[in-house]
Amino acid sequence: MSNFGSDNVTGAHPKVMEALSAAAAGSATPYGGDDWTARVQDRLREVFEKPDLLAFPVATGTAANALALATVVPPYGSVLCHADAHVHVDECGAPEMFTGGAKLVPLAGTDGKLTPQTIQAAIDHAGVRDVHRVQPAAVTITQATEAGTVYSVAEVAAIAECCRRNGLPLHMDGARFGNAVAALDVPPAEVTWKAGVDMLSFGATKNGCWAAEAVVFFDPALARDFVYRRKRAGHLFSKMRFVSAQLEAYLADDLWLANARHANACARRLAEGLSAACVDLAHPVQANEIFAHLPPATQARVKDAGFVVIPWPDLGTDAVRMVCAWNTDMADVERLIAVVAGRAA
Amino acid sequence: MSNFGSDNVTGAHPKVMEALSAAAAGSATPYGGDDWTARVQDRLREVFEKPDLLAFPVATGTAANALALATVVPPYGSVLCHADAHVHVDECGAPEMFTGGAKLVPLAGTDGKLTPQTIQAAIDHAGVRDVHRVQPAAVTITQATEAGTVYSVAEVAAIAECCRRNGLPLHMDGARFGNAVAALDVPPAEVTWKAGVDMLSFGATKNGCWAAEAVVFFDPALARDFVYRRKRAGHLFSKMRFVSAQLEAYLADDLWLANARHANACARRLAEGLSAACVDLAHPVQANEIFAHLPPATQARVKDAGFVVIPWPDLGTDAVRMVCAWNTDMADVERLIAVVAGRAA
Amino acid sequence: MSNFGSDNVTGAHPKVMEALSAAAAGSATPYGGDDWTARVQDRLREVFEKPDLLAFPVATGTAANALALATVVPPYGSVLCHADAHVHVDECGAPEMFTGGAKLVPLAGTDGKLTPQTIQAAIDHAGVRDVHRVQPAAVTITQATEAGTVYSVAEVAAIAECCRRNGLPLHMDGARFGNAVAALDVPPAEVTWKAGVDMLSFGATKNGCWAAEAVVFFDPALARDFVYRRKRAGHLFSKMRFVSAQLEAYLADDLWLANARHANACARRLAEGLSAACVDLAHPVQANEIFAHLPPATQARVKDAGFVVIPWPDLGTDAVRMVCAWNTDMADVERLIAVVAGRAA
Amino acid sequence: MSNFGSDNVTGAHPKVMEALSAAAAGSATPYGGDDWTARVQDRLREVFEKPDLLAFPVATGTAANALALATVVPPYGSVLCHADAHVHVDECGAPEMFTGGAKLVPLAGTDGKLTPQTIQAAIDHAGVRDVHRVQPAAVTITQATEAGTVYSVAEVAAIAECCRRNGLPLHMDGARFGNAVAALDVPPAEVTWKAGVDMLSFGATKNGCWAAEAVVFFDPALARDFVYRRKRAGHLFSKMRFVSAQLEAYLADDLWLANARHANACARRLAEGLSAACVDLAHPVQANEIFAHLPPATQARVKDAGFVVIPWPDLGTDAVRMVCAWNTDMADVERLIAVVAGRAA
Repeated sequence: MSNFGSDNVTGAHPKVMEALSAAAAGSATPYGGDDWTARVQDRLREVFEKPDLLAFPVATGTAANALALATVVPPYGSVLCHADAHVHVDECGAPEMFTGGAKLVPLAGTDGKLTPQTIQAAIDHAGVRDVHRVQPAAVTITQATEAGTVYSVAEVAAIAECCRRNGLPLHMDGARFGNAVAALDVPPAEVTWKAGVDMLSFGATKNGCWAAEAVVFFDPALARDFVYRRKRAGHLFSKMRFVSAQLEAYLADDLWLANARHANACARRLAEGLSAACVDLAHPVQANEIFAHLPPATQARVKDAGFVVIPWPDLGTDAVRMVCAWNTDMADVERLIAVVAGRAA
Repeated sequence: MSNFGSDNVTGAHPKVMEALSAAAAGSATPYGGDDWTARVQDRLREVFEKPDLLAFPVATGTAANALALATVVPPYGSVLCHADAHVHVDECGAPEMFTGGAKLVPLAGTDGKLTPQTIQAAIDHAGVRDVHRVQPAAVTITQATEAGTVYSVAEVAAIAECCRRNGLPLHMDGARFGNAVAALDVPPAEVTWKAGVDMLSFGATKNGCWAAEAVVFFDPALARDFVYRRKRAGHLFSKMRFVSAQLEAYLADDLWLANARHANACARRLAEGLSAACVDLAHPVQANEIFAHLPPATQARVKDAGFVVIPWPDLGTDAVRMVCAWNTDMADVERLIAVVAGRAA
Repeated sequence: MSNFGSDNVTGAHPKVMEALSAAAAGSATPYGGDDWTARVQDRLREVFEKPDLLAFPVATGTAANALALATVVPPYGSVLCHADAHVHVDECGAPEMFTGGAKLVPLAGTDGKLTPQTIQAAIDHAGVRDVHRVQPAAVTITQATEAGTVYSVAEVAAIAECCRRNGLPLHMDGARFGNAVAALDVPPAEVTWKAGVDMLSFGATKNGCWAAEAVVFFDPALARDFVYRRKRAGHLFSKMRFVSAQLEAYLADDLWLANARHANACARRLAEGLSAACVDLAHPVQANEIFAHLPPATQARVKDAGFVVIPWPDLGTDAVRMVCAWNTDMADVERLIAVVAGRAA
Repeated sequence: MSNFGSDNVTGAHPKVMEALSAAAAGSATPYGGDDWTARVQDRLREVFEKPDLLAFPVATGTAANALALATVVPPYGSVLCHADAHVHVDECGAPEMFTGGAKLVPLAGTDGKLTPQTIQAAIDHAGVRDVHRVQPAAVTITQATEAGTVYSVAEVAAIAECCRRNGLPLHMDGARFGNAVAALDVPPAEVTWKAGVDMLSFGATKNGCWAAEAVVFFDPALARDFVYRRKRAGHLFSKMRFVSAQLEAYLADDLWLANARHANACARRLAEGLSAACVDLAHPVQANEIFAHLPPATQARVKDAGFVVIPWPDLGTDAVRMVCAWNTDMADVERLIAVVAGRAA
């Protein structure tokens, strides 16, 4: 493919499709009472080395994030997040809808990252126990971030420690969680619950599934009323196995990590190639996204050569985003580099 | 299959799976900008003989219903519905969530049906323009009904006329719309917009898809803010083609009607067989659902024979629901009849 | 006054006005940090013999009810109430708004009363722990009821016992609580927390104040997030003493009970007089409201004589409501009786 | 009074109390059908030279703001406001609650003011018609601002022109509207609808009333569903005259402007005196609020002398707010100046 616009322009991985086809025949208990869904939870318990986690399949990242947050954030609460966070900028107010009107508090942070300092400052400023103010109720971070960077285990742990000190649950928007874990090359547990993450939106859609995410509660107590909220939001699927079968294939043999490693490798190569061609990168490239400044003439050349990249005006009029995916062809990466470098058209 | 518990215990029709597999390769514009989604709308315009209708794929019936209603019902509004309506009884308050707290007003009605008389009486009683009262804002009917019956074209038209007189949009929950159209054997337009229906939740999940519905606005003006509400509810899929490909296959060559006709035929045969065995049916069997009174001993026999039927306590302690689906084996129907009749075990 | 339309057509009792005038001078801590508010809580603790109750002044009964319910009812919850309950019928969906979309479940009941049996049947029918159903989260009863009747202590206790068995908090809408207590002639504690009531909307507006209610939590733990919800709803008054001063005067020397006794006595006399004139009463008259069937000619006579009574179509085309208040003139009562009896014009 | 903490520490003006006392006797049509309420609307039409405006009394500024905004802002909408706006910072999320979850977008601005440039930039950045983003739906400005400054007529008109160009209604939070009009010394119409303001929260509580505000719609069409929203929020008072009588007295003989002029004069004198004493003011003093930097020793002296001023940490650890009110004693102002200047203790 020569479409570097997003990882969501991809379809589904052949193994995911196979699993879905295999699941199509026969009858199964509806609404998640099926075997696929049970096996997905078992498998996630293994993957995360946490035998008591609770996992709930849903079909969009927006649903996963909004449902997870709504489980712990009251209507008079606030969610501290990065100013560029998907939950704040790209979900048309879903967290507000699902929480019944909580407020998202956007915080600044280099390369898409929050720090314990910015979080603590926001809490100090928030007016805790002041009835005139919305009350901090959760922190959410995105891993990999919206800037294509990856929180280290230590960075997550420091944020989690700050959350714990303030009695706030920590949610991780893992729309590109696979890319982050692949980049960090650590066991998934290390960068989640062992570091202090309470809830994870475990994304699979961008990385090889059709429409599959799992809301993972590492502390099962937090999941108390999740199932009612999910149903009420229209996100409980009668034929749940259609989501769970995707997830099962995605998790089997660590397909998710293999896919993510491939996407990351393509992005790394692309970043190197662009840098070598004197292209200015807006953020370190640590996962599968590249944000770069491309002069108009270069952008025109890229377009003429049949590549799709996306203008990213927040970073400047010459900024673009390029995303590599599980099915990106490395040859396309090389060709794109050559076009940018002016060695090909 | 010998599972008569529900039509949602089924998987997906082979043609739906084929279409999905075919759609998996290659890249596509995300969020519904793809060709599949465009073709589904075109096809629905043909099917409904309405070139300006707007259709939006979603993945659950609850989402379809709640989103459609929220588009026209303000928070201080009410939705008039049958007391057994899925929106009122089985969606954990989804319409309340999506509308921001509107009230569902359950109305009585024989065999799952509303009438213009009950609707008008409810409106007369509602306190229109009285600020102390929630204001009637929509009427919703289910076709086929929750009682397994089917509104005739004339019945729908009479309800719609009542709605129009009172300035209320009419929504149709078509979770089993295919079964209703197959039963009526009329063009879909006749029992929807030509009869005065404004919005349809066109259900496909129960009748051969995995997770696919379309919210159809026959009056495109009503769809004004639908797209924001869908996104905000987490029901806008990045890889939308995964829903649209299902719908495309479902609509192609009228697969939806063929599936529905089969399910209805099975149900009709089952109803005849049960009646012949002196079983008391709770409602006329007009689509693919049968509600029947089965003595405990018979129920035990049915269970021992490996059949799944569902207790239906609302109709009495001896009541059960049996549902036939697109993939029900007629031989299983005959066997079930024989078991009930005491001719087999 | 000859206005028997409602107890809310009255102004404020002279002692309430005096107290308000006295409170007008000088500065005070805003938002309820003032002495009046502290004294009202102290006084309510005395009145209810409950030293740890928490009381929060608000200015409308709708706010009191909706805030109290929202404190304990999640968005996916339901509130069991009488079909004629003010919260269900006359608040334009306030409980739905404040809870974020919970469902009110209207239950039938003679003379405006719920019974443990109807409540238990509703719970049994509700689908507790079924994710497809809204979950029962509270019961609310109105004392005096919307039918002008009064729950006995035993009746309240029986309902509370049913609530406790089902883990549901019991709320009492006491818009006419004074009238009920005056009618029962028991200590307020007996018919509230000692009988098992958890939360009370202690109404004062109808019975001599301008705009004053107190939300009383007998179990302080239930009040956890009340203060945020009140502020967020715009019901935290900066000059709170204007509500609290009313309540202080209302509670002083049991003005509230004296007012209520007077209103009840007027109503009792009116009911006797009407009965003697062969007027059919729709409900027993136990507090300050009378529901009666008056032939059209009688209604015309009443109107011509300058009396205001309110048509009450729910009880029939000939039905009217008459309400006696703290300032009703007994001479007007006698005159009204005479007019109805045809002895005066 | 020596309480400079806020204008809401005051009680009610004697004329307001007189009017309230006079209104207490006799019966009146409840829920705003009374004569006081009608007269208030008439009087506001005169005051604003706008015979078709619609005005609705409520009792708190938070209710006024949240209801006004909810009338025009859908759940998926956003409200552009100053970062220090009361609606954003001090209402515990009331606009979010009343709109069903809209987003407030805080914008920077010197001395508490928005400009057309910051508003336009925010709109340009917002993603208009992008379904992933909340949609700009209203602009709100505070007059006088939270910084104690006052928008000139030209400044309001420029903002309104920007709003009109973008199709956004303009709301004015007039919690201290009297102070602003007194400062500008222009007819109220000039700085509201003639300048392009669509809706005004006309505040009276801080400036001499107990609890009285009016939501004013200069374009009556915008008020369409206001009455249902007000009722549903528990802000429709049965004995509405208690609010309206306050407003009537407040508007009579321009008491509101006299009160505001007094408060402003006190503040002006205080600002002059502080400046003369080399105190650094954080914002220009244009209405009745002073924000100043006072060294700790000075703050201690002020406190010891019996004055209440409020720490204002947002402006620095040495910052305080002082507010003059309709009943501030000019002698107290002089004494406070003397204490700050070290000429008195």
